Amino acid sequence: MRLSQYFLPTLKEDPKEAEIASHRFMLRAGMIKQNGAGIYTWLPMGLRVLRKIENLVRYHQDSVGAHECLMPTIQSADLWKESGRYDAYGKEMLRITDRHDREMLYGPTNEEMITDVFRSYIKSYKDLPKNLYHIQWKFRDEIRPRFGVMRGREFLMKDAYSFDLTKEDAVYSYQKMFLAYLKTYTSLGLRVIPMKADTGPIGGDLSHEFILLAETGESEVYVDEKWMDMDLSGKDVFYKSRGQLDKFFKEMTSVYAATDETHDGVGAPANLVKTRGIEVGHIFYFGTKYSESMKALVQNKEGKTVPVEMGSYGIGVSRLVGAIIEANHDDAGIKWPASVAPYNVGIINLKVSDEETTCVCEELYKNLQAANVDVLYDDRDTNAGGKFADMDLIGLPWQVIVGPRGLKSGVVELKKRATGEKHEVSLESVMNTLTTDIKDITQGF
Amino acid sequence: MRLSQYFLPTLKEDPKEAEIASHRFMLRAGMIKQNGAGIYTWLPMGLRVLRKIENLVRYHQDSVGAHECLMPTIQSADLWKESGRYDAYGKEMLRITDRHDREMLYGPTNEEMITDVFRSYIKSYKDLPKNLYHIQWKFRDEIRPRFGVMRGREFLMKDAYSFDLTKEDAVYSYQKMFLAYLKTYTSLGLRVIPMKADTGPIGGDLSHEFILLAETGESEVYVDEKWMDMDLSGKDVFYKSRGQLDKFFKEMTSVYAATDETHDGVGAPANLVKTRGIEVGHIFYFGTKYSESMKALVQNKEGKTVPVEMGSYGIGVSRLVGAIIEANHDDAGIKWPASVAPYNVGIINLKVSDEETTCVCEELYKNLQAANVDVLYDDRDTNAGGKFADMDLIGLPWQVIVGPRGLKSGVVELKKRATGEKHEVSLESVMNTLTTDIKDITQGF
Repeated sequence: MRLSQYFLPTLKEDPKEAEIASHRFMLRAGMIKQNGAGIYTWLPMGLRVLRKIENLVRYHQDSVGAHECLMPTIQSADLWKESGRYDAYGKEMLRITDRHDREMLYGPTNEEMITDVFRSYIKSYKDLPKNLYHIQWKFRDEIRPRFGVMRGREFLMKDAYSFDLTKEDAVYSYQKMFLAYLKTYTSLGLRVIPMKADTGPIGGDLSHEFILLAETGESEVYVDEKWMDMDLSGKDVFYKSRGQLDKFFKEMTSVYAATDETHDGVGAPANLVKTRGIEVGHIFYFGTKYSESMKALVQNKEGKTVPVEMGSYGIGVSRLVGAIIEANHDDAGIKWPASVAPYNVGIINLKVSDEETTCVCEELYKNLQAANVDVLYDDRDTNAGGKFADMDLIGLPWQVIVGPRGLKSGVVELKKRATGEKHEVSLESVMNTLTTDIKDITQGF
Repeated sequence: MRLSQYFLPTLKEDPKEAEIASHRFMLRAGMIKQNGAGIYTWLPMGLRVLRKIENLVRYHQDSVGAHECLMPTIQSADLWKESGRYDAYGKEMLRITDRHDREMLYGPTNEEMITDVFRSYIKSYKDLPKNLYHIQWKFRDEIRPRFGVMRGREFLMKDAYSFDLTKEDAVYSYQKMFLAYLKTYTSLGLRVIPMKADTGPIGGDLSHEFILLAETGESEVYVDEKWMDMDLSGKDVFYKSRGQLDKFFKEMTSVYAATDETHDGVGAPANLVKTRGIEVGHIFYFGTKYSESMKALVQNKEGKTVPVEMGSYGIGVSRLVGAIIEANHDDAGIKWPASVAPYNVGIINLKVSDEETTCVCEELYKNLQAANVDVLYDDRDTNAGGKFADMDLIGLPWQVIVGPRGLKSGVVELKKRATGEKHEVSLESVMNTLTTDIKDITQGF
């Protein structure tokens, strides 16, 4: 993409409403624009990151055999009256009346609706297990939305729902998702720790929150120091071996980690670390809570009709954009992990009016595109200082800086945003360096 | 995908609420489930088609230099009061009050919001032209939703908005979109005719509807017989030659085509065909209607501040799923054009208990996946008749039927859904036939 033609409205000043780094940088880097309290437009650069995260989340859901569907945003109140949550949900639920005076709502979550989908079609244990998920906008009418997309009202969530015949099978489904979540966060370049959690209004008796450690996190967390060096990727655990997965799950959940809600000191180790974190996922096994009240029944092997065992599994996709920035930035701006960077490489043309500089930039731009590298080319006729600042702000992993002075010696400058390292490299080797590095990274997940 | 593990709840009986073929087949083929009046869940198979259409629409928007963003579904009423449409829009607008008693609405379209995005950042002719689009769910509270996704209340729309300094530039932007639309429909396998249209509540003085001819269409249309053989793909017209595009646009719009709303007989040719059609797109040039009332002003070359010239361009993405089925089905079910088929090939295993049959099916399934062919494998242990019926119903372009009888002579049966043609082919050549055919088709757009 050529910056001269793109829509990337960066801001020089810090917007005064932004209290935390991610909110500040998302506004300044032209990723989002606020439309109302807790409601945002995703501008082109922001949308690219959102979609990359969404695709990684999708990939890992599909990997454990979950099937993607898409439920609507607007739901009928009737389903929520069946489950008993319509009155219980309170003011966070955006309630709507349509032209025929029917009670509707903007879905804050989808347990009721997916249970209705399930019970409409599945009647026998032979069609189990099933796991259905969707990635859809939700609305929760927070009393005080803040921190940008970290606590918005309209937000994008991936929510999956598992259906099993027995509690044992349901726990297996839970463990598969547990592993898929860890793999998802690893692929996003994040260190996320699973913590025992309260089940809250969803209900049930097995639940984990996935917490990204960050100084600016909303809640206090208490974790065994061991977590800091542990391999959280689960990369050697295969989905199909039930025993291996169970062992991995038990290992992971036996090391102490708790939010301030569940931290009670019982079983806490001597080497306890107290820090802060951001919730980036929450999973629940809640058994027959919804299937009983909503009559989602299946016939078991003995021909008896029983309520199906369920779990639900959420990842805040739009929130993750903010969380990733909280974990990856410096004073100058964002430092995107390669897997979710809006573009992998930014080319800075230091002197558009110089024929050779522009010619080299154009050639590099064309070659990188041909090599399937996402590249943003700053071809604007503006001053170098502003270009450097913008490029650091938007935080692409690699910068290629091309100017007349370097070209005299046949070199361009390569800058790695994460570390700030700069190297002069020859025109001949720059393509090679970039394409090799990017291949290494994208093969990572 | 293995059908035994998939979520594809096909129905044997015609649902009584479905009045037209697309609605009937989408319900029966397990593509959608109704959740309320005009509100649907997209089940896995339906979602695959929706996403394929969405991606083709996106491809052609990007091709003319439009930038994708994503505006929220919930909007503040304030913007609509600025434009004067808040009261004018009537009961089709789903109006909402949040917990702080603020007036909100579920966006039925986004002229106001995109104008607000534009005016927040762009102040100079130097940043023009711009074209921004998004693909987002909309809600229109139709008094009588019907025909499934063809006239739903919650629906997926691609809407683009162009911003130019002068009327001449705005007409050029309009023509680029006009061409992108024709290319989009061609890539979807549809013959769609542009027709002069009223601008209605959007306003403005240049507008075309894009109409898919179909017996079951909602409106009467009158077209010059010439349209029937015309090349509508615009494949030799390049975006960057303004003169060539203008010529193409004038040629296309000089041949008579009108909906019953604009048909007045003036200039109608002798060889007029009266038929019916389905609207699958609508584009508008409306000048400064919104930029004046909402003060979206830019500085022109002379330093004078002028309202920006605008157009808007809509395609009903979810509606297209239904429209494509209306144009491509027979009594047995859907006949998907290859570019939007949920899977390209379906394998029918006629006898799961037969070792050789299952072995051949598994091998074929694996090889097709390895060749990047989307393949659905009916590995269910059910009777052949039901499998044939389901496969015809869901309408994948190719069927490979594998059974013990054919395997004795080393052959499988290949069926082309569109024509019903069947051929026995040797096991050796089946892969070749399928992968060649699919490559031909996917290279088409």
